[in-house]
Amino acid sequence: MYNPYELRKSSLIAELSAGGIEAALITSPGSIFYLTGFHSDPHERFMGLLINPKESTYTLFVPALDQESASEEAMVSKLVAISDTDNAYELLGKEADNSATAIGVEKRHLNVATYEQLAGVFHKAAFRDVEPLLMRLRLRKSAEEIELVRAAVVIAEKVLQEAAAKAAVGVSELELNAEIEYRLRVLGGDKPAFETSVLGGARSALPHGRSGEYRLKENDFLLIDMGVYKGGYCSDITRTFVIGEGTAEQARIYDAVLAANHQAIAAAEAGRTLAVVDRAAREAITSRGYGEYFTHRVGHGFGIDIHELPSVHGSNESLIETGLLFTVEPGIYVPGVGGVRIEDDIYIGDDGKPQVLTSFPKELQHL
Amino acid sequence: MYNPYELRKSSLIAELSAGGIEAALITSPGSIFYLTGFHSDPHERFMGLLINPKESTYTLFVPALDQESASEEAMVSKLVAISDTDNAYELLGKEADNSATAIGVEKRHLNVATYEQLAGVFHKAAFRDVEPLLMRLRLRKSAEEIELVRAAVVIAEKVLQEAAAKAAVGVSELELNAEIEYRLRVLGGDKPAFETSVLGGARSALPHGRSGEYRLKENDFLLIDMGVYKGGYCSDITRTFVIGEGTAEQARIYDAVLAANHQAIAAAEAGRTLAVVDRAAREAITSRGYGEYFTHRVGHGFGIDIHELPSVHGSNESLIETGLLFTVEPGIYVPGVGGVRIEDDIYIGDDGKPQVLTSFPKELQHL
Repeated sequence: MYNPYELRKSSLIAELSAGGIEAALITSPGSIFYLTGFHSDPHERFMGLLINPKESTYTLFVPALDQESASEEAMVSKLVAISDTDNAYELLGKEADNSATAIGVEKRHLNVATYEQLAGVFHKAAFRDVEPLLMRLRLRKSAEEIELVRAAVVIAEKVLQEAAAKAAVGVSELELNAEIEYRLRVLGGDKPAFETSVLGGARSALPHGRSGEYRLKENDFLLIDMGVYKGGYCSDITRTFVIGEGTAEQARIYDAVLAANHQAIAAAEAGRTLAVVDRAAREAITSRGYGEYFTHRVGHGFGIDIHELPSVHGSNESLIETGLLFTVEPGIYVPGVGGVRIEDDIYIGDDGKPQVLTSFPKELQHL
Repeated sequence: MYNPYELRKSSLIAELSAGGIEAALITSPGSIFYLTGFHSDPHERFMGLLINPKESTYTLFVPALDQESASEEAMVSKLVAISDTDNAYELLGKEADNSATAIGVEKRHLNVATYEQLAGVFHKAAFRDVEPLLMRLRLRKSAEEIELVRAAVVIAEKVLQEAAAKAAVGVSELELNAEIEYRLRVLGGDKPAFETSVLGGARSALPHGRSGEYRLKENDFLLIDMGVYKGGYCSDITRTFVIGEGTAEQARIYDAVLAANHQAIAAAEAGRTLAVVDRAAREAITSRGYGEYFTHRVGHGFGIDIHELPSVHGSNESLIETGLLFTVEPGIYVPGVGGVRIEDDIYIGDDGKPQVLTSFPKELQHL
């Protein structure tokens, strides 16, 4: 059985100790899953993993509702269930070394209200942001993690294929959306990785638009952005189709995005900077006259969360390294006309070359 | 057209001014929707509504990706789009009165990293938590809001009816889950209000369990907890069925939960405390010998978010008032045996009496 949790926790503990951090309280569901194997969204309730690096102990606080599943799944030293009438911070105070002077927290995942409560528990402590450290640990994916991502990609591509087969004049965005999320479940996906987006016609120019009542017409773009969670890891893919013959302008826009996708992927080699990937895409689009309509970064890391490191944008001078997993998703969005995005999932393999995990055809398909 | 946003914003401004708060930065998607009519989940990007009470100006900062939809939907004075290479806090600094000494933020919805950035922009300011104020404004729902909730309930109940009709020995939790989320879309729901939960057999004793591969057997409990978003508002309903004849113990457990549901609803009258509602449910269950298996509060408010005020638990001595909207959802979870929960959506009408928005039958159904 694949049990990476001890190794991950000991890597974290080594880094915490080296940084002089006496206790850490991890509150992001993604990092708790990464470290313990237990995944839950506690909504407004408190969930946290308290780590004592000196003692190598891991105490997981979960809402009482999650106690049974956490006790089955979480690889921790101790589990503390918090009922709705308990004071979570009192329970935390009992388990924690409140004489600690340096506490690690994830500042982007910790809200200010909780922070103020923690400052009461750890009244001598300065709070240090350990999210960058966790993101660094999670940055390079193992072969086992990539197998999980591949499984999520396989489901997404089957679903996308089926959705494309159902697309036709008169079909609505919401109907295709429903079909996608249904087939996703039937094919074994755990849930959508994010809100599926099916956009037709000029609405495809809304890069993060939501599926609506709009019904496809002849010569519409059809943009489908979807992803699947499977076993705790996700996939993320976008393809754009044309209903019927399409116009010459649509073909030009599509070709520009396709060239950008190819050039960006070709640029994604270990040892180069991430900025180069974004610039390669932007250069392909700008040279074809659509530069002003490519309004977002070219890609983002993903894995346990749909947005992880690295951020693939034109100012990120960090080097590409083996184990990175990120999207390459150039797009052109012409208001009133329509938009095209072609998104693949890229893994930087041991040889430093980009492996394209998504294999759905990228040539323009007329539906 | 139903346009309540000016009224809501002016109510907020009056309260901010009365509290001596010179600027507020609202960052929760739910409250931004409540105040502006624009709904988006910005994920890790920055979205915020900057309010200047003295000038009555409302500046909405959105990721550039959302600019087009925000310009169509948001009722604000000014829209500022933030691209992935912009520094959101610099843009904020340009729009804000950075001499303000009292800034309102939502401390539960503001992460510590953003908070530290804001402290740089508003370098003279103390930060005050305005979330309680916003939650108070959102607490009492208008007749128009309840119409939106009713629409979300209608869809949920149709879907639940169809799912019950498909449940049978051999059908898996995930298949029913897929069916539910598919029909939800086809029937016009925007999306599930939360992760739909279909739990069979002993797994029904996991109060927040996730649908899995488990296939229904004769004499299983089948617990379905689902909700629907429609037009920005949600519904939340749970029913529990038995596959086949069931056992005498199952009938006893079901009867105890049903009695708790009825008694809690009967107790929900304006002028009483919310604690009384929880206690009425708990009394019904405890007197039937299952007290230790009712492990959560009896209900929660909802509306724009699936969890809002009020929290309906045994220590909440706040009074029930007209306009409140909350769930009543007692449950019994016997590990290894199974669980039953019966959840309704309750609105306290102008006469102070509970209106049960959910009308799905509550008598034990054998499928």
